[in-house]
This record gives sequence, structure tokens and C-alpha cells, in this order.
Amino acid sequence: MQLAFLGLGNMGSAMARNLLRAGHHVTVYNRSLHKAEALREQGARLAASAAEACRGAEAAVSMLADDHAASATALGDDGIAAGLPAGAIHISSSSISTACSRELAAAHRAKGQHYLAAPVFGRPDAAEAAKLLVVAAGAPELIERCRPVFEAIGRQTIVAGDQPWQANTVKACGNFMLASMLETFGEAYATVRKAGIPPQVFLDAMSATFGSPVYDGYGRAIAEGKFEPAGFALKLGAKDVRLALAAAEECGSPMPIASLLRDQFLSALAHGQGDMDWSSVALVAARAAGLPDSKPA
Amino acid sequence: MQLAFLGLGNMGSAMARNLLRAGHHVTVYNRSLHKAEALREQGARLAASAAEACRGAEAAVSMLADDHAASATALGDDGIAAGLPAGAIHISSSSISTACSRELAAAHRAKGQHYLAAPVFGRPDAAEAAKLLVVAAGAPELIERCRPVFEAIGRQTIVAGDQPWQANTVKACGNFMLASMLETFGEAYATVRKAGIPPQVFLDAMSATFGSPVYDGYGRAIAEGKFEPAGFALKLGAKDVRLALAAAEECGSPMPIASLLRDQFLSALAHGQGDMDWSSVALVAARAAGLPDSKPA
Amino acid sequence: MQLAFLGLGNMGSAMARNLLRAGHHVTVYNRSLHKAEALREQGARLAASAAEACRGAEAAVSMLADDHAASATALGDDGIAAGLPAGAIHISSSSISTACSRELAAAHRAKGQHYLAAPVFGRPDAAEAAKLLVVAAGAPELIERCRPVFEAIGRQTIVAGDQPWQANTVKACGNFMLASMLETFGEAYATVRKAGIPPQVFLDAMSATFGSPVYDGYGRAIAEGKFEPAGFALKLGAKDVRLALAAAEECGSPMPIASLLRDQFLSALAHGQGDMDWSSVALVAARAAGLPDSKPA
Amino acid sequence: MQLAFLGLGNMGSAMARNLLRAGHHVTVYNRSLHKAEALREQGARLAASAAEACRGAEAAVSMLADDHAASATALGDDGIAAGLPAGAIHISSSSISTACSRELAAAHRAKGQHYLAAPVFGRPDAAEAAKLLVVAAGAPELIERCRPVFEAIGRQTIVAGDQPWQANTVKACGNFMLASMLETFGEAYATVRKAGIPPQVFLDAMSATFGSPVYDGYGRAIAEGKFEPAGFALKLGAKDVRLALAAAEECGSPMPIASLLRDQFLSALAHGQGDMDWSSVALVAARAAGLPDSKPA
Repeated sequence: MQLAFLGLGNMGSAMARNLLRAGHHVTVYNRSLHKAEALREQGARLAASAAEACRGAEAAVSMLADDHAASATALGDDGIAAGLPAGAIHISSSSISTACSRELAAAHRAKGQHYLAAPVFGRPDAAEAAKLLVVAAGAPELIERCRPVFEAIGRQTIVAGDQPWQANTVKACGNFMLASMLETFGEAYATVRKAGIPPQVFLDAMSATFGSPVYDGYGRAIAEGKFEPAGFALKLGAKDVRLALAAAEECGSPMPIASLLRDQFLSALAHGQGDMDWSSVALVAARAAGLPDSKPA
Repeated sequence: MQLAFLGLGNMGSAMARNLLRAGHHVTVYNRSLHKAEALREQGARLAASAAEACRGAEAAVSMLADDHAASATALGDDGIAAGLPAGAIHISSSSISTACSRELAAAHRAKGQHYLAAPVFGRPDAAEAAKLLVVAAGAPELIERCRPVFEAIGRQTIVAGDQPWQANTVKACGNFMLASMLETFGEAYATVRKAGIPPQVFLDAMSATFGSPVYDGYGRAIAEGKFEPAGFALKLGAKDVRLALAAAEECGSPMPIASLLRDQFLSALAHGQGDMDWSSVALVAARAAGLPDSKPA
Repeated sequence: MQLAFLGLGNMGSAMARNLLRAGHHVTVYNRSLHKAEALREQGARLAASAAEACRGAEAAVSMLADDHAASATALGDDGIAAGLPAGAIHISSSSISTACSRELAAAHRAKGQHYLAAPVFGRPDAAEAAKLLVVAAGAPELIERCRPVFEAIGRQTIVAGDQPWQANTVKACGNFMLASMLETFGEAYATVRKAGIPPQVFLDAMSATFGSPVYDGYGRAIAEGKFEPAGFALKLGAKDVRLALAAAEECGSPMPIASLLRDQFLSALAHGQGDMDWSSVALVAARAAGLPDSKPA
Repeated sequence: MQLAFLGLGNMGSAMARNLLRAGHHVTVYNRSLHKAEALREQGARLAASAAEACRGAEAAVSMLADDHAASATALGDDGIAAGLPAGAIHISSSSISTACSRELAAAHRAKGQHYLAAPVFGRPDAAEAAKLLVVAAGAPELIERCRPVFEAIGRQTIVAGDQPWQANTVKACGNFMLASMLETFGEAYATVRKAGIPPQVFLDAMSATFGSPVYDGYGRAIAEGKFEPAGFALKLGAKDVRLALAAAEECGSPMPIASLLRDQFLSALAHGQGDMDWSSVALVAARAAGLPDSKPA
């Protein structure tokens, strides 16, 4: 397919690379040129703006940091909507709010373009290995048309519904589940440490109980107090908790653990942890228990 | 080994059976004779009291419902401590409070007997398959002596420390992690359902994300609203959350998610869910969102 | 003074009336003409738009429902900023977000106009009696210039700072204190009722303990289950809790009780209580305890 | 009346003094003799044990720190039940659990004695001025018989029900209301301070809004960071929150703010604030917001 790709962070670069590997023609645009250059060597064409990248494309894939960046890239003067042909599709993989997703859908509709939300689960290494989980929502025929894109970047595609924002709800709730797991580890480790039990003992018990690589990985990071470099920055995690709360508020569903997470992430930010890995939210529970901030023994 | 086994519920019966299979000599006692009879066919001797079962034993394994039952069985007139020889070991596998565990340890010490806490993780099917996770704590040489017991009932033994109550802390915190997962599923499903998304979609996303049989199993039960028959009764789950809070209070560690769980379990009990599976705590979040109690579509 | 007054709800009408009583010249504008007519009899002039009301005014007082209404009335084509003379002051008494307050301040500054935030505490009867508490913030000399306005509507003026949004923060936090009191009553009454104690007994104890007319009034309403007609609608209360959370998030301050309130208000909304008095948030705690929704005996 | 008085802390001493002033004959007992001596000068007789103090008394009033002290003083070998004549009444004014209250009631019943719970609201200065609020529960005829006692120590008596433990429920829920107010102040002040607003401004607004001496007093203490000497020690406040949670759990009523308070008090204890005034729980919210522990400016 003729594709545009917008947003070349760690996740986006890996996704664009896999689209190239799968034989798609990809024109990329990124605000800082540096990252785009790297992709040129792998066969990408470079564009000077999002609009230019989208000219002639069948679909444009965007992977941006937040609502602000997603809106600016899609709706700005040199944005996706300004370049994408009528009938072409904007596949938004960014983790954005349901409100922003609806706004983008309406803007593209007004121009005779199509819009799908297709946020992904997985960290940069999964993106690199084309093993992301893609959660797509929008008109069924559009989703079918975009299957080659989803298959090039992920191992599985789940269809959430025919309204694009529904995929954003699933993504927000999924990240809520991950963030909750981090906080539960934080609370349990604080208790275990104050009881004089090595965190590793508790980690072994949880690895055996849950049998989940996600519990293993985050459980180990928290047990060892290893929060840098960040795989996923705490400030982005705080944003995702906000997205879950916003989605829940919209549809009238209280989420008390999400509310609690919001406060723990806020406290973490107030203690300067914004650029640490989001698993460092565990430090908030440790601090409340009077434990020193330093690594556990 | 010459063993006594006290408490033949679903878990205890399976554990006793595996001790027999491993070639140990096991004398069992249970308040209701019925369950003991079943084990006789598999080679167990029957005793008329806990004390009688313990006479001549090298170790007595107990698996009882709560602090009250554990204390009564250990310290009553016809209890474990009244029958166990000096130098023999009481291995308490019950999920009891750290306070109760310390009380039992002291009582046995006063009689020249030994005490280990060795609570287990796993549901009845894991117990039947000798695949429990055993978390043991107490004097290292006692733990070594009891290895053959642990190996007969479990797939892995983790040593939590040299104070028996430390194993109870690990068990309480582990069950807190499981209960937290149930509540997070409940909150996320409530939001997802109110957003018109089939719960199965969210379940698929979480299965792919966590890669954990525990998430798969409970996630499915909650998505399908299938809470009976109970694998683990909600009223026992409520007790375990209390144990976690008590352990945390003892060592001065706030656990805000555990506090929240306490309230959700209380609300579930107030709505008559005590004998449903503990995963039905998810109904509390659904109710708060104004969703009907019936199964999701 | 020559004044404009925008927004003639229950609160605004009473405030405008008191400005007239104090001898000010007041031109009013309200979206629905009906309420403006009532004020004409008391000496107000009527304008056909906010802009028209503001022409020639020394100050414009606005009292609107939320951010949306406040922005539209201030910044729309026929809005306050379009009519207010350079050097004149917009006194915003609406309960709006700090973000909206900053936006209004910037818009007026760009036009050479001034902006003060002066939200008020008090219910409609206090507004009628000119006994509001005014919390003002902005440039000190502007506050001095507006003293006659504040004195005509309130019994006391508190200066929060020289940044207008600071007054909005105080207002949001104050409403948070009130909402918290409602929820604590709800939880305590639920327990007291389930213990078979008449709510009136608890109310008497709290009246004697706090010696506060606010506790007396709300405590009685909740004890009697009298939530209609609404003095202050629950949906507005939900908005105010959001404002507090937004203000807190902005300055990096976790507010766990505010987060909890958010969820309780969301649950109340999901149960159709949006137009009831905000004290009906107490029904959420009663419901969680399995109590019937009907009035307590 | 012929009275015994047990427990001469700050509260108890003042109450005993007022009973003497009202013309009652009072025999006192306190574990440390020192405080009893002070009362001798005011007309009290001294006894060498609780039992001795109760011999020949029509009623015994006890005012003790917690369940443990209350049980020991009532049921020990030289305790109240051992000395009180059949038909006489034990009036327990201690803040104890409903469970302990039921245990004391049963023990006295078994000896042909009577039992009333009559916990009080008010700080030591109110006790000194005979202005306590008495919440009494038990058999109506017993309450009538004890009116002269209640009138000597308090300004008002509220009857909670005919089961003594009901008065303890009211007391626990009342202290929950007070503790909640402290936490809400803590959260609001943290936000206000981070917004650069003097705490005094917020205090003024709350004084004007609530019109409550309790808000004034605690609001000022927290604004000024003045937590010592303790009027009511935080560790006792933590106990009272536990009592409320226990009472709520007993009757199946979730109290999410009480759960949250439990965690905040635990964090305060973990930071060494047990002997500070309980209003210092506000430091927990300040700390979570990254504010320094020192006094606000």
C-alpha cells in the first residue's frame, strides 16, 4: 500500500520499519528530521510536512504522544487532513482521549476522508518485533482494507466496535489495568519490606502465581528499584490514567482504583519522577510507609 | 514420614491425598467424619481428635478456614499441641493472621514443639495435581526437615524468612494482588460495557497483554457473569483482604488499594454475595455504574 | 457605579438586585428574557446582548453556570469583551476552572480591559440577604476599585492573591470541603442506620459537636432523605469536584478525598440524581451498604 | 449518689471533679496514684483497686484509654465487676469498640449488675466546664437512674438506643466525622499552598462558610502547623478510625472515607507523629504533594 507515517518516536520508528519490511511504500514525516533520516536508509521517503507525506497515500498511520500532538499533526495547516486524498484513511495509533478521537473523526469526515482508531499494546521491543496487539475500531470495511497494515506491525488485531473512540476506551482501560498492577506491587512490596522479607521472595511467589511475563518484568524492576532508563515515562502513564478517568466519566462509570492511581501518579510527579519509568509509582507507597527512597536491599 | 493431617476441606483433602501418594504415613482428623472416610480408602488412618492424630507424628499439617478454626484445632483440649510429641513440628498451611501465627508459635514453643507456617497458593485443582506454591517460614533446619512434605504437595517452595508469621504476610499480600486484579477487571468491564464494547473484546486484549492464565480465567468468569459455583467464596476473600490490612497495619504500611477492596467486599457481602465466587466483587463496580446485576450480554 | 450584570439565575438575580438596592446603575443581560424582565421592575435597564450591557460600564459582573457559559458570554461576538470599554473591569463571580479564568484574564488584557475573579460562597438565600462571602483575586488596585460592588452583595470580602485564578482555587477547594462533609454524613448515616440507631440521634450529636448551621442544615436534609427541590443541583456539585481536582492537578497536589467524591458523584449521576440536591450524594453510600433508596424511617 | 470513678486521665479527672462539685460521693481509683491524690483535695475518697472503689456504689463511671484498659479494669481480679453490688450500674464512658462493649455488658449481666455505655464528645476543656455531650445507650430505666451523673458532667444527653453498643457506634462515627474534617483541611491546604495562596485566606473562607468553632480551631492549628502539645494524640485518633471501621464492618456498611483515613493515619504513625495532635494527619497530604514538613509560611 501507499502509506504515510507520522510520528517517529521509539514506537513509531519501529512500526514504520515493519511496514517497510512488509513491502509497503512509506513516506514519513517527523518534527525532528534526525529520526526520519534513519528510516530513509531502510527505504522510506521523507516529506517536509505531514500534509506532503499524505499526498497520494491510501492510508496515513499516526503515532503521537498525546491529544495536543495528535490534533496539531492531523488538523494543522500542513496536517494530515490537508494532504490526504478523499476516500483515504487516517489510522490513528496514538493513545489519545475518546474526545480527541471523535474530533479527528469529524474533521476527516468533513473532508471526505476516513478515520480509524487503532491504538496498540506493547513496549518498544514488541513494536520492533512486529508483535504489537492492535485494537482497531471504525467502519468494518475500512478495518478490512487496513488489515495489511495491522498485520505488518502486530501479532493480533482485535476489533473493538464500529465507533473509532471505542478502541481508545479499550486502550485506556488496558493501560489502567497495567498501572493498577504497578501500584499493587508497590503496596505489597512496602508491606513485605517493612516485615523484613526480601522483595525477591514476594516476586517469586507472584511469578509462580500469575505466570505472566508482565508481572515478572515489572515485579523485578520494582523489587530492584531500577526505574531508569524509562521504558515508558511516568508522565505518560499519568496521562493514560487521566484518559481512563475521562473515558469512564463520559460513560458514567466510577473507577475508584483509577482515581487512586491518579493521586499516586500526581504524588510521584510532585516528587520529580516524571521521566522515570512509570513503575516508579511504587515509590509513592514506599514513601507513605516511611521507607527510604533508595533501592530496597 | 509419620504425619498427621488436620482439616479436610477441598484443599486439605487433596493435599493429604498427595502426601499418601508420596508414601508418607498419614493419620487424618476432620470435624465432620464424612470427608475423613473418603481418605481412608486411599490409605489414611483415621483419628477421633486432632490430639490423637498427632500422637507419635513427626509432623502435623493443618489446613483450616480461619484464625478461629486454626486456634481451636491447635490449642483446644484435644488439639494438636495436646498430642504432638516434643520436638515434632506443626506445619500450619492455613491462611491465618500474622497475630494468630505468632500465638500458635508461642504455644508450641512452650510445649517443646516446633512450628512452621507454610501457607500455599493455588486453587483446588492445583492442590489435586500437587502443583501448589508453598511459602514456608521458620527455622531453616525445620524447613529442611519438612522438604519431603512440601515436595509432595507442591511444585515449588519459597522460603520467606525465619519467622513463621512472615510466610503469612507473603500469603496475605499475594491474595491482595489477586483480589486487586478482580476489582480492576470489574472497573474496566463496567466502563467498557457502558461504552457499548463487548466484554470479550477487552478480555482478548488483556489475555494478549498479560499472557497470564490467572487473568484469562478470572477475566472470562467476570465477562460471562459466571460466579457460581464458587471456586473460592467471596466471604473468604473478604477475610483475606482483612488479613492483608492487619499485616500492613502491624508493620506500619498503608495499602490504599487494600482499603478500597475491603469496602468493595463489604458492599458485596451487604448484597448477599458471600457464597458466590470472590470474582463477583466485580458486580460492585457494575452496580455503582448503574448497570443491571444480570449477566452482561 | 455604572455596572453591567450578566447571568440572572437564582444567584445572579439576587446579586443584581442588591447592586440596585445599593444605588448602582445596573444594565442586565440574560439569555432568557423572562428573568431580566423581573429585574426591570427593580430599576435595571435591559440590554439585548452582553456586549450592549457592557457599553459604557465601569465594571461588568458575570455569574454563569460553568466554563462553557462563562467563555461564551465573555468572548463571543456579542460578548463582554466586545462591549466593555478599555480600562473597565470584568468581575467574574462564576465558579469556573482556573484554566478558564486565566483564559479570560488574557483575553481582556489583550483588549486593554481588566479582569478580577470574585467567586462567592453562599446559597440563594444568602445572596438575597446580601450575605455572600466574596473571595476576590487580582491586582490590588482593581480590588479596591470594586469594593463597592463586593460590599453590596456580601457580608465579607477575602482577598486570595494577585492572580485572579487563585480565587477560583479557593472557591473550588471550599466546595470540596462542603462536598466532603456531605459524603461523610452519608457514610456515617449508613452505618448508624444499619446499627438500628435513628439518624436523628446522630444528627443531634453532630449538631452539638460542630455547632455549625451548615452541618445542621445538610445533616437534617440527609437524615430526612429530603433532596428535592434542589438548593444546589448534584450535577453542579459534580462539576465543582472536577474543578477542585483540576486545580489540584495543575499545582501537583493529590487530593484523595476529592478523587473519592468524584466517583461517588459519578455513581449518583449514573443513578439519575443529577437534578436532585447535591446532598443526595449520601444515597450512594446507603446503596453500597444495601440500604433501600427510600427515605430512612 | 454513691459513685466510683475509674480512670483519671485529663478527661476522667475533670469529669470526676464535676461529679464531686455536683454533690455526689465519689471514690476514685487510678493506676498511678498521683492523679488520684489531686482529687482527694476536692473531696474524693481514694481506693486501692477498682473493686474496692466500687464496693457499696450505686454506679461506677469508667473513662479509660482503649479496649484493653477497659476490659482489664472491668473484668480483672480486682476489677469493677468484682466489687460492684448486684443491681448497681457500670457506666462506661470510654471510647471502646462495640465488641468490647458487648463483652462488658454480658460480664456484668452474669453477675446481676447493669451496664450502660455513655461515651462523651468534647475535649478536656469542655470536660472541665461540665459541657460534654453525653451519648448514652442501654435500658431506658437505667438511663433515667443515671441522669444526675450525666447532668453533672455534660450539657446535653442524647439517647442512642437500648443496646449499649449503639452509643459506641455513634461515638465512633462522630469521631470519624471529626477525623474526616482534619483530612479535608489537609488536602485543601496542600493545594492552596502549592497555588501560592496563604493558608489563612482559606481558613477565613472556611470560618465564614461553616460558622463552626471546630473548623475554626482545627483549621487554625493546621494552617499554623501547630501540632504540639497534643489536645488529642494522633495514635488515639488512629484507634478511633479503627473503631469506626470495625463498627461499620460489623453491620455491613462500607465507609470509603474512613478507609482512606486509616491509611493516612498509618502513614502519619510511620512518620513518627503518634504523639502529635491528631490534626497533624494533615501533614500526610502535604508530604504527598511534595511540600516540606516544616510549618507553612
